[in-house]
Amino acid sequence: MNHTPGPALEGPETPAVVVDLEVLRRNVRRMADAAASAGLALRPHAKTHKIPEIGRLQVEAGAAGLTVATVGEAEVFAEHGIEVLFIAYPLWVTERMARRLLDLAGRVRLSFGVDSAEGAAHAARRLAAASGGAGGALPEVLVEVDSGHHRSGVAPGHALAVAEAARAGGLEVAGVFTFPGHSYGPGAAAGAAHSEHEALTEAASLLEEAGFEVRRRSGGSTPSALLTEPGGATEIRPGVYVFGDAQQLELGRCAAEDVALTVWSTVVSRHESPEGPRRTVLDAGSKVLGGDRPGWASGYGRLADHPEARIEALSEHHATVVWPEDRELPPLGSRLRVIPNHVCLVPNLVDEVLVDDGASLRAWRVAARGRNS
Amino acid sequence: MNHTPGPALEGPETPAVVVDLEVLRRNVRRMADAAASAGLALRPHAKTHKIPEIGRLQVEAGAAGLTVATVGEAEVFAEHGIEVLFIAYPLWVTERMARRLLDLAGRVRLSFGVDSAEGAAHAARRLAAASGGAGGALPEVLVEVDSGHHRSGVAPGHALAVAEAARAGGLEVAGVFTFPGHSYGPGAAAGAAHSEHEALTEAASLLEEAGFEVRRRSGGSTPSALLTEPGGATEIRPGVYVFGDAQQLELGRCAAEDVALTVWSTVVSRHESPEGPRRTVLDAGSKVLGGDRPGWASGYGRLADHPEARIEALSEHHATVVWPEDRELPPLGSRLRVIPNHVCLVPNLVDEVLVDDGASLRAWRVAARGRNS
Repeated sequence: MNHTPGPALEGPETPAVVVDLEVLRRNVRRMADAAASAGLALRPHAKTHKIPEIGRLQVEAGAAGLTVATVGEAEVFAEHGIEVLFIAYPLWVTERMARRLLDLAGRVRLSFGVDSAEGAAHAARRLAAASGGAGGALPEVLVEVDSGHHRSGVAPGHALAVAEAARAGGLEVAGVFTFPGHSYGPGAAAGAAHSEHEALTEAASLLEEAGFEVRRRSGGSTPSALLTEPGGATEIRPGVYVFGDAQQLELGRCAAEDVALTVWSTVVSRHESPEGPRRTVLDAGSKVLGGDRPGWASGYGRLADHPEARIEALSEHHATVVWPEDRELPPLGSRLRVIPNHVCLVPNLVDEVLVDDGASLRAWRVAARGRNS
Repeated sequence: MNHTPGPALEGPETPAVVVDLEVLRRNVRRMADAAASAGLALRPHAKTHKIPEIGRLQVEAGAAGLTVATVGEAEVFAEHGIEVLFIAYPLWVTERMARRLLDLAGRVRLSFGVDSAEGAAHAARRLAAASGGAGGALPEVLVEVDSGHHRSGVAPGHALAVAEAARAGGLEVAGVFTFPGHSYGPGAAAGAAHSEHEALTEAASLLEEAGFEVRRRSGGSTPSALLTEPGGATEIRPGVYVFGDAQQLELGRCAAEDVALTVWSTVVSRHESPEGPRRTVLDAGSKVLGGDRPGWASGYGRLADHPEARIEALSEHHATVVWPEDRELPPLGSRLRVIPNHVCLVPNLVDEVLVDDGASLRAWRVAARGRNS
């Protein structure tokens, strides 16, 4: 093992968020190909990266548009030339939000989520009031159904009432969607993909029996996207796949060489003994890595070049890395690459990422950073 | 219980980070008074807020300067008129960092941490090289000791070797510091305060016996700051106390009326039954609340006006709130105030906070947001 930092690692001040362009492009292409082979439309979730350059790569590779979580994210990607946007979130539409949605719908093909008859009727009223009877394009809605994650979304059997409320308010219902978030756990992806299939199929059938044309049945987290069963979803919305992360690695959903984003960090503290564990401390903490750690994860991220090490504690500016007894601790000042546990948190913590094209580092701005509303 | 949102809650789009100015001022004053009564200098940790206006309130109330975690944070507060800054972190000084530290030391009274002889010698060499023999002010250093948190910091018995390396390199050693991070747990604060006392006293004695003038013995997290034992620390560095948070509330270290920062959110989804728990979903997720949840916490934050509710799950844009069987769920569109678990993560996630002075909301910019290096 060579702990000497190479020339490529001498560059930026740490911690720095670095994207390997070749790996990123390969990930984008691979998911696009897989979706096309399965006959599924791909609407990647852009909350993972929040970066227009990456959104354009996804669309150029064949994505049918992008998914976002907030109106603010939609505005940023619309400003940067993305023409089809789905806000996969049950918006509670305020007066101001209604004006923003109408403005967006005049520029891009826009859809958003509803998960209650009351929310759908409210959205319809707000949008009608904001348009002032002026006509113009309205966003379409999709009914969110709960496929077992028990977050937002109605039970599939209740989807029709939501769709009817939207239609009664004058909104076009494009279909149904779900987020199989319970796919994020060891051995959980196949079961989640199956419950997604059941939920989408049940809800879509109820709508079709009532005369709705269900053009979109939307599902597909990164762990479950490639397990989508035929005849269920018509489109998938994976996000994490562009970068990969330690969670996907430990779930077996990506390989180490598929990880496109790492956080370069420096060993600032080193302790052979005698008090506490045998450890090094890195200058990358939760304010750049994000603090997510599911119970099944081995730590707060992984070291890209040292799979034997464990990040056993994380505070805002410290990652405490514990090493096996038989491994030498890397020296002070070493630069190490950290794979974050949950990569969706990371671009949101920095103004820009550094893109490594093999020859140099250039910056991409995280244009939708912080756009929570 | 009245779930109707009042006029004051109709304002900003949610999620919004709102600071109650009166409570903030009271918290600032109370800690300043407590430190003064105990004869302790107060150097509040500004990583919690990253906001110059709050730093100035702290200094006006008598703080001896501010503590920060990074060179970037120090630069921001120096630009905004704070004259005494302590980077309480064991910096590994690069060439570029040495130039930045010298520039800062020319403008403010600056100190930073070292926790190894090698790191101290390296810092001294880098600073000497960057100054090019031109003279000018150098930063002072403090030796970080481990008082039981087992993160960075040398064992107290090894502090002297670090101090000697700094002195040999021409750096002034101002004292010793520790972070009693193991104070963050039920019943842990008093024990942590005691181990801090022991560690600072042991390290300081060793330095004094070797002829060092130990002007500063620095400790004091928010849970332990007011438990500081006489004769140990000469200064404390609490951070969270300005805002309070759900962790401090559940540890009994602040009262509900002392919480100065809440995240205003909207009920976007509501589920009486039948699948999953009886729940509402708020539009504030980990991208505004931060995701920290220690094992002993009741959830991912608390609702300020509904202590009986539990935030049982948190994703990037959803907080899943579970309600007791005997409580009515708040209606869709309700605005609820969330107390984050760990408030230090929150200002770092937004460009500005809204300051509520009882009459109106105005914005304070989070000037040091994202300054991780």
